Amino acid sequence: MTEPSQGGGRRRPGRRPGSADTRGEILAAARKVFAEKGFDKATVRGIAREAQVDPALVHHYFDTKEGMFAAAMRLPFTPQDIVPVLLEGPREEVGERIVRLILGVTSEPGTREPLVALIRSAMTNERAAVMFREFISNAVLFQVADRIGVPHLRIEAAFGQMLGVILGRYVLGLEPLASADEEELVELLAPTIQRYFAG
Amino acid sequence: MTEPSQGGGRRRPGRRPGSADTRGEILAAARKVFAEKGFDKATVRGIAREAQVDPALVHHYFDTKEGMFAAAMRLPFTPQDIVPVLLEGPREEVGERIVRLILGVTSEPGTREPLVALIRSAMTNERAAVMFREFISNAVLFQVADRIGVPHLRIEAAFGQMLGVILGRYVLGLEPLASADEEELVELLAPTIQRYFAG
Repeated sequence: MTEPSQGGGRRRPGRRPGSADTRGEILAAARKVFAEKGFDKATVRGIAREAQVDPALVHHYFDTKEGMFAAAMRLPFTPQDIVPVLLEGPREEVGERIVRLILGVTSEPGTREPLVALIRSAMTNERAAVMFREFISNAVLFQVADRIGVPHLRIEAAFGQMLGVILGRYVLGLEPLASADEEELVELLAPTIQRYFAG
Repeated sequence: MTEPSQGGGRRRPGRRPGSADTRGEILAAARKVFAEKGFDKATVRGIAREAQVDPALVHHYFDTKEGMFAAAMRLPFTPQDIVPVLLEGPREEVGERIVRLILGVTSEPGTREPLVALIRSAMTNERAAVMFREFISNAVLFQVADRIGVPHLRIEAAFGQMLGVILGRYVLGLEPLASADEEELVELLAPTIQRYFAG
């Protein structure tokens, strides 16, 4: 994510000028609006209104709603970063690519923790569940599924496999899963994901 | 679970006699001790001490620590109920039996909610995670795996698949997973579980 210089866009009346962290204020507003409205119904305009800035300023910092969501939730990637990675390369290796990508992203605490935090809040809070469901379905799973022609139910089964493994490995700390070598997990899980994508 | 008549076992000095709900008090003590010590380190003796009753009285109500845990967490089954069901019948149908059992238990709110509550607390509380991990590993997964000779990592991958599907279906409410027909899910998931058990 780029960090553009301050000062793009007009400010509304009443907005204090030259705020030191306009981007941070937009993200705080985004977190509030996503939590209240869910991912689908949140709009750039609504987030700008909440942050008391012009919508053009929001667009100046964030290209898309997906990118703003990823930044607001401190996710280590945007859907635009990962969807193409999953789609490129041979179709018969898509299972392995997905398993490697998810195990890679979750292997480092710095990239894993924001994801786990988002999942945790979705587990325990209905609004967070709506927000997470809409984001993961519409911005990630269905993007991949529709471009390679996999039924939504099958990509959700694949998502379930990886969700359960990540929770078992990092949140529940099941052994030997928690200490298993990444290559061993790729060998075990890639054929499962591949089978869902081949159906 | 049987509901024996009151009054088995001696009571310690200081324990008020003829409590109307001795079983309920033992279960409250069990919840406290399991949360503090985890499943492995909790003992019938320690739970009896916490409840201020004789260990024989605890045994009068609950045959095993596993049964006491299931009752304390209001689970719809004990490991002794389900492990044999999974083990009987043809080996080549074990995947389907597991998927049907888990979808069946979770299809009714009354039996699903205590399970989801246990998983939720394990997601958000480290002590609850230890307790859940030890119970699910030692009283359920490894019992099944060791009796049919499946490596622990493979049964944990199968557990991950079913955990993720149940969370996606009932907690996140992913569609079409949440509304999918049980038979359709059996057809989709049973080969995955079977493959882990065949390895």
